Amino acid sequence: MNPATTIGKPLHGVSYYPDLWPVSEIDRDITLMRELGINMVRMGDFAWAKMEPSEGKISLDFHLRVMDKLHVAGIATVFCTPTAGPPIWLTHNHPERCFTLTDGTPMSHGSRQHASYDHPYVRTACMRIVEAIGRSVGHHPGLIALQIDNELKCHVDQDFNEFSIKAWHAWLEKRFRTIDQLNEAWCTGIWSMRYERFDQVPAPRPTPFAHSPSLTTAWQEFTYERIAEFCDEQAAILRKHSSVPITHNTHLYFPLNFERIFRNMDFASFDDYPNSAQYPRLLMQCDMLRAAKPGKSFWVMETSVAHNGWSQNHEPAHPKGYLAPQAIACYASGAQTVAYWLWRQMRAGAEMPHSAILSSWGKPALGFDEVKDVTRRLNELSPLLSNSVPAPTEVAVTWSDTGRMMMRSEPLGMNVAHKIDYTLTIEKWHRLLLEAGLPRDVRFETASLKGLRLLITPYMPSVTEAFLKQVRAFVEQGGVWIAGPLTGHRTSEQTVPLEAGLGKLEEFAGVETVYSFPISGTGASGEALGAKAPLSGWCVALRARDDETRVIGKIGSGPADGLAFITDRPVGRGRVVLISAEPQGEQGEAMLSSLIAHCAEVANVTHRYQATRGTVVFPRVKQSGRRAWIVINLDGKGGTVTLSGKATDIVSGKPIDAGDLTLTPYDVRAVDLD
Amino acid sequence: MNPATTIGKPLHGVSYYPDLWPVSEIDRDITLMRELGINMVRMGDFAWAKMEPSEGKISLDFHLRVMDKLHVAGIATVFCTPTAGPPIWLTHNHPERCFTLTDGTPMSHGSRQHASYDHPYVRTACMRIVEAIGRSVGHHPGLIALQIDNELKCHVDQDFNEFSIKAWHAWLEKRFRTIDQLNEAWCTGIWSMRYERFDQVPAPRPTPFAHSPSLTTAWQEFTYERIAEFCDEQAAILRKHSSVPITHNTHLYFPLNFERIFRNMDFASFDDYPNSAQYPRLLMQCDMLRAAKPGKSFWVMETSVAHNGWSQNHEPAHPKGYLAPQAIACYASGAQTVAYWLWRQMRAGAEMPHSAILSSWGKPALGFDEVKDVTRRLNELSPLLSNSVPAPTEVAVTWSDTGRMMMRSEPLGMNVAHKIDYTLTIEKWHRLLLEAGLPRDVRFETASLKGLRLLITPYMPSVTEAFLKQVRAFVEQGGVWIAGPLTGHRTSEQTVPLEAGLGKLEEFAGVETVYSFPISGTGASGEALGAKAPLSGWCVALRARDDETRVIGKIGSGPADGLAFITDRPVGRGRVVLISAEPQGEQGEAMLSSLIAHCAEVANVTHRYQATRGTVVFPRVKQSGRRAWIVINLDGKGGTVTLSGKATDIVSGKPIDAGDLTLTPYDVRAVDLD
Amino acid sequence: MNPATTIGKPLHGVSYYPDLWPVSEIDRDITLMRELGINMVRMGDFAWAKMEPSEGKISLDFHLRVMDKLHVAGIATVFCTPTAGPPIWLTHNHPERCFTLTDGTPMSHGSRQHASYDHPYVRTACMRIVEAIGRSVGHHPGLIALQIDNELKCHVDQDFNEFSIKAWHAWLEKRFRTIDQLNEAWCTGIWSMRYERFDQVPAPRPTPFAHSPSLTTAWQEFTYERIAEFCDEQAAILRKHSSVPITHNTHLYFPLNFERIFRNMDFASFDDYPNSAQYPRLLMQCDMLRAAKPGKSFWVMETSVAHNGWSQNHEPAHPKGYLAPQAIACYASGAQTVAYWLWRQMRAGAEMPHSAILSSWGKPALGFDEVKDVTRRLNELSPLLSNSVPAPTEVAVTWSDTGRMMMRSEPLGMNVAHKIDYTLTIEKWHRLLLEAGLPRDVRFETASLKGLRLLITPYMPSVTEAFLKQVRAFVEQGGVWIAGPLTGHRTSEQTVPLEAGLGKLEEFAGVETVYSFPISGTGASGEALGAKAPLSGWCVALRARDDETRVIGKIGSGPADGLAFITDRPVGRGRVVLISAEPQGEQGEAMLSSLIAHCAEVANVTHRYQATRGTVVFPRVKQSGRRAWIVINLDGKGGTVTLSGKATDIVSGKPIDAGDLTLTPYDVRAVDLD
Repeated sequence: MNPATTIGKPLHGVSYYPDLWPVSEIDRDITLMRELGINMVRMGDFAWAKMEPSEGKISLDFHLRVMDKLHVAGIATVFCTPTAGPPIWLTHNHPERCFTLTDGTPMSHGSRQHASYDHPYVRTACMRIVEAIGRSVGHHPGLIALQIDNELKCHVDQDFNEFSIKAWHAWLEKRFRTIDQLNEAWCTGIWSMRYERFDQVPAPRPTPFAHSPSLTTAWQEFTYERIAEFCDEQAAILRKHSSVPITHNTHLYFPLNFERIFRNMDFASFDDYPNSAQYPRLLMQCDMLRAAKPGKSFWVMETSVAHNGWSQNHEPAHPKGYLAPQAIACYASGAQTVAYWLWRQMRAGAEMPHSAILSSWGKPALGFDEVKDVTRRLNELSPLLSNSVPAPTEVAVTWSDTGRMMMRSEPLGMNVAHKIDYTLTIEKWHRLLLEAGLPRDVRFETASLKGLRLLITPYMPSVTEAFLKQVRAFVEQGGVWIAGPLTGHRTSEQTVPLEAGLGKLEEFAGVETVYSFPISGTGASGEALGAKAPLSGWCVALRARDDETRVIGKIGSGPADGLAFITDRPVGRGRVVLISAEPQGEQGEAMLSSLIAHCAEVANVTHRYQATRGTVVFPRVKQSGRRAWIVINLDGKGGTVTLSGKATDIVSGKPIDAGDLTLTPYDVRAVDLD
Repeated sequence: MNPATTIGKPLHGVSYYPDLWPVSEIDRDITLMRELGINMVRMGDFAWAKMEPSEGKISLDFHLRVMDKLHVAGIATVFCTPTAGPPIWLTHNHPERCFTLTDGTPMSHGSRQHASYDHPYVRTACMRIVEAIGRSVGHHPGLIALQIDNELKCHVDQDFNEFSIKAWHAWLEKRFRTIDQLNEAWCTGIWSMRYERFDQVPAPRPTPFAHSPSLTTAWQEFTYERIAEFCDEQAAILRKHSSVPITHNTHLYFPLNFERIFRNMDFASFDDYPNSAQYPRLLMQCDMLRAAKPGKSFWVMETSVAHNGWSQNHEPAHPKGYLAPQAIACYASGAQTVAYWLWRQMRAGAEMPHSAILSSWGKPALGFDEVKDVTRRLNELSPLLSNSVPAPTEVAVTWSDTGRMMMRSEPLGMNVAHKIDYTLTIEKWHRLLLEAGLPRDVRFETASLKGLRLLITPYMPSVTEAFLKQVRAFVEQGGVWIAGPLTGHRTSEQTVPLEAGLGKLEEFAGVETVYSFPISGTGASGEALGAKAPLSGWCVALRARDDETRVIGKIGSGPADGLAFITDRPVGRGRVVLISAEPQGEQGEAMLSSLIAHCAEVANVTHRYQATRGTVVFPRVKQSGRRAWIVINLDGKGGTVTLSGKATDIVSGKPIDAGDLTLTPYDVRAVDLD
Repeated sequence: MNPATTIGKPLHGVSYYPDLWPVSEIDRDITLMRELGINMVRMGDFAWAKMEPSEGKISLDFHLRVMDKLHVAGIATVFCTPTAGPPIWLTHNHPERCFTLTDGTPMSHGSRQHASYDHPYVRTACMRIVEAIGRSVGHHPGLIALQIDNELKCHVDQDFNEFSIKAWHAWLEKRFRTIDQLNEAWCTGIWSMRYERFDQVPAPRPTPFAHSPSLTTAWQEFTYERIAEFCDEQAAILRKHSSVPITHNTHLYFPLNFERIFRNMDFASFDDYPNSAQYPRLLMQCDMLRAAKPGKSFWVMETSVAHNGWSQNHEPAHPKGYLAPQAIACYASGAQTVAYWLWRQMRAGAEMPHSAILSSWGKPALGFDEVKDVTRRLNELSPLLSNSVPAPTEVAVTWSDTGRMMMRSEPLGMNVAHKIDYTLTIEKWHRLLLEAGLPRDVRFETASLKGLRLLITPYMPSVTEAFLKQVRAFVEQGGVWIAGPLTGHRTSEQTVPLEAGLGKLEEFAGVETVYSFPISGTGASGEALGAKAPLSGWCVALRARDDETRVIGKIGSGPADGLAFITDRPVGRGRVVLISAEPQGEQGEAMLSSLIAHCAEVANVTHRYQATRGTVVFPRVKQSGRRAWIVINLDGKGGTVTLSGKATDIVSGKPIDAGDLTLTPYDVRAVDLD
């Protein structure tokens, strides 16, 4: 039962807070868990005050006793470090130890994540409790994995604590070595920014107008590095005491450098609380975390059984029957584990309104029967899941953490309504692939491109030499690369490339930037592949460098009338397709879908399925090499998927004819194809 | 002329700031007041700097001379303590004496309510001026009442002054005695909140995520207690020097515990500045303040003659003819006094745009003729008003100050648009009763239920044992209790009851909570009494415990399909009706109206009238025991009211036939029924 | 080539930042500028750190060398003081030297305008660099003008620095002499504001409710005076070293007292970045700055060649062909210079997304060809422009800086949507004149009324005796004065006049205020000149004092039904027309247009042209006294203008028939009329 192997028994878990309930109820809880098919429990997160009620007096005895009971019952434990919930003795009367907002306001005890991990006193206390946990539970036979902290930065972002700012100066010095190099790189002659020493470079505190994007992006990079180092430091301590794999649980919307944070984790995990309409976002995270650690399963560490909620807000509750298809979609995508937050409704505090399997008063809650249903389906599919892996994908979208930072510094909007949000944009491209029936990865910027035939890289302002080199090799060997809007128009320091509008990308794509300008509000539209759509966002109007580069999309009006916004150039055995303005609305999505279909064909993408919208195919490859599909209706409307040949229903063993296979609402089917 | 008796001569008053005008104009003002029928003047509020221009040098001589003149003219005086307007010497260069925002920002001199009443120096200065007022004016023959401060907390809410926080710790210690009991009550194991000492418990300063609702509600309770103590302390000093009744003027939207603030007042008063469309809110306050001090008249201490306004905003001006029906509606509801803010338009400062009877340049302003009209109508009705009291009501809505605090801590919204606002919700239930023609009280949580046949208690998360005991007795004796949505789902410490979803309420109502979840966004609807409506907000889906409990409303779709949201159980000679989800929109209001009508019938409510919407009946009982109605058209559209038998017009003395009596727009009629 | 003369060679300029680019590119830039027809370069703004890289070590050598090169190429230089971009050594570790927000937050280095010019250390450093500039470049033969700072207050408004507040107290003392006079003037008895000493008067720091408008307006006046003194002090130093004219560049929306700021400037200039739909705002600024310094040309110091933009936002890019008509409209309005920001796209920093003539990579950008087009048209029209001046206007709208301050203190809105914005309101009146074909000035409050026949003064709450005296003389000599809504209802200290609702204006206009109240939301409408329109905003309902005053507009419903809102009174040979409520919407604009047409006729306004909307006539008078028109289509839709007689096309020399002359989209025509 090692999560680091690709194929393993699927785990079905819950978050559990045994210290909040009478000890007498633990046995009953464990019995109920077993009945429900729960075989994993996560605990320890936020229990620092239980473990170290007064400073330095640490005991893990309570949690160890619970682990013993769980182990006896055949339930594995994931143990978390509790550093997201500092006890009162750490910060009381010490605002200087607290996380500090841009304007200097220190956070107060009373919630979560209020301590500054950059403060040396806080850091020491964190590592002391981590060490104690490693020593106490690291060898426990029931321990299956360790989790570091919990959702780092889920409520906060950049820490302006005095010690963070000191570290910022050291980080800058390490990066630039001399202040002249920083001045040169950021062109600080602008607005008389010029610095004489590193300690003068401000954190982006309030100013009358904007800071330089070079500075705000560097500051983001620094803060993401700092929090990753905090995570690494915990992992190093834990590894001294335990050989179980270590993870951290995050979410697409948290301000982290995901590639960096997972670098030193043994496997990747994420939390997501989609309502039933948001399943595409969940699938995107599956496609991203599966790719994060190639060859390793990922985990869904938290999801709600019925609805997300806290004192000030809640999401709509899931429709009946939704939870099982959601969970199976995760397993089918490559999750080893799906775990719920939480076992029993919070009896107090800000999260009382969140759904759970049991109510605070100990009765089955809205999610109880749904979890049962997951177990039933999981049991049906467990042989398949344990005996197969997700089929390798041929198509991927790039996730660039640097791209995300840069787009935050410079969202290039016409107004608030048009600001370009990196994450939403990548979600959109992912969704277009999903709707096209193209199984897909979301791959980090430095990930290998092995196995891919089509790669899409939108909104990555800075294209590094390393990335370009890798893509060049990929294309030369026959791959098709779609470079999307705003890719390549900034240097690595978020300045304008001085050699050409798109820097080195121009030569590779066979184009020349004529104008770089905002096309929103000009009424301009573009034509490509027989479709027409309004253009929006920032536009790099292009001309082809030579006859090899073909103009696929032409701007049809406005200041750049007649220039190109989509080009296509053969390079080696493959192609570089450049999209340099965003086609908008339904027409725009239709145009992009055509382009994707066209490029997939050119790239000889072979894995593609045909299904009605809302019905998703998860292709698997068995150890035997034979192919199987898990097909799930996720929009609750039912649908069909087309089978190109005869198939066999894996659960019933019955044969299925070629042609359209109908799924009822929230139906889950598994079929052997060969 | 004692406002503490139920029946007294109606008073017609104004707010007056004689110190802002040349002394020479006071006599002219008084003459004009008499001509207009003004027989009460309120003054002293905000005049602290006039009374004590430099620290410790106090003289009330100016105001006493004005009182003398008024008294000679037959105009009674209400004198206010001026503590809402601290002089410059109190806070200049002393930010630590000032009211402090959540983030630590101290308020500055330059407006009102900027001092911290929790600061000992400020407190001492306040009580010194109060004592001087008591001593100087307490025995003046023209004095009819004393008002403490002015609209406490109208611009501010919770004070984070250092001394407030010290008092918070003492208050917590008094309430919980040991820190362990606090930790237990709030379940501070959650998020490692656990405290070692009371002085560690934070005021809800900024945190990365939400504070515990247990803490934020306790903090509200504490701050409301503090301000009530400030009010009490003033009252105790004044009582040493005067025997006139003491009041404080507040408004439905101010952050106070109304029940607590009025406990030690001799009579209740309120300010309201409705525009003409907002008369239902005004009537609700009448129904609430009449019930606040049973057997005592209430006062409307401030309302505008034409429009509310200040430098940054204004309300629409009243239509012609609106002021008189508004004023008579207040008298008819049980007000002894209606007073206007203000006599003469502010000649400077932030309130210049507010309407007055006289303009700053001394001419009749927009409200002048309207006030004359009030006097005329009042004279016509004065015999009736002096000789009768509002008929006792059989129907009431509960106003729970604790409920309001809890709903602020935990508004349980799906998003901002759906946040449940306690006050607006109670206003809605009050309006449904108004539209149903059911004369009504709004009764505080601990008020006696004497005389009632139907009680409605929505959105009171914590049902105390005392409240339940009282309601049980009420029901057993034949009353019908409608417990509305979200009533009973929290303990007194705003945690989840561990015995059952609705705690002790379940047994009483004969129900069992199956699911407690947000039904907003699920598309669920409910059916009851032949009507169908979408359901929204938080839903407690129920099943009946036994055959005695009848399901009246059934959930028709969604995750709780088939469960109950309205139940009805006979208890003793009465009934408990539980509504556990909110029917929404027009259909929802129609359903609730049907339910109210049904329950009123079951409860044998006899006082009910039939009138078109916008026309309101105010039933009165004469000292002789005979019944009379004051009927007012308040929406300016005219309407009809149905007389079940012959009646007599009180003003004209003419007989009126049974059947529909027609009212012209803004008509006011008074009829003897017997 | 002296900009202080009315007629001069038109200049065509750019902003240039040579220190941001390799020295080797300067010669290429200059060559390109010449080719494009650029004959003016502005520089020095924001280059403080280049000039004084460490404290006290000042050298202007770099910029002097660039000026030498430009001079040789025949390109004149405008040199700016760089005080908007303080170097790091000035504020690092010195938050007390920084601009401070209302809540006390000091601004940080990292952007612009973060230093407090009221701090003595900052002030000294500013004047030292100004002195060095004067000494170094003041006599350079290429220098054509000096610019002080750059867009003062464009990102900030009122400075709450400790030294600003000290200066506030001194300013108050100078103004009021004794604190009793301040107390009396502001009626500080209200809310116990009363002050014992000047140092107690707060800057408008956060308070629970509003400050007195008297105080907030005085504070605005003070801060505008302070920044003007900063500007004056620089000018005085520069004048010691140079005889070239001095200017400052501002924009309609910046928080300055424009009349005060230009008082000590030698000529007026402004920056504006309209998108193509916003040309009326640009024309308004032309009409205002032409009038600011009578007999002197103004400059357009900055405008974009294609689109405005910075990291967080951008405007829509100009349509093709728009730039030239925009530029010619400015020259035709009386601009000597139109200059672009900027020559070459920013290669880093927050303004990378702003358009330029060259891209950062040195290629022609979107505006390149447009600038060429401007040069071409300018060459065609240069003889006319050099040989004529804008025809004197007969019509003007008053711009009252005090009015603007007062409306900010007391916007008298019904809610946010209805807040009265002074600037937008004046823009509206200006636009109505533009659409009426009436060439117009926007004249400062104390400007001479010489040459005018019709003056419109809306939203000037306080009418000073000096203004009234001047207007009275104007009217008596035959002028027509339209006093618009809210003019005259406050004293100079923003209190209510105690003699009458509109103070001394009432006698002059022959009216009496009956009611002053907000008419928004009452549903009232007004009738005038055969038109009917809803009324909104604040209404002063009037009655005529005697038979001489004629009621033109009558309120038709609501609380002031039957009273007047437009009156007309003959005074001497002219007339006073008073509008005391704002007719709203399209109907309201139609009514106001009729009134303007009527008044222009009564006033014998002779300069009027007839053109379709979007086509604008700029009348010029040649040195010979003969008349010429420049006619421009600015909305890109084309249009016609009516020629009353035969004319001659100035560019082609061909005759044009009387009647309608057709313009193509963005057409520019110049015609001799006589």
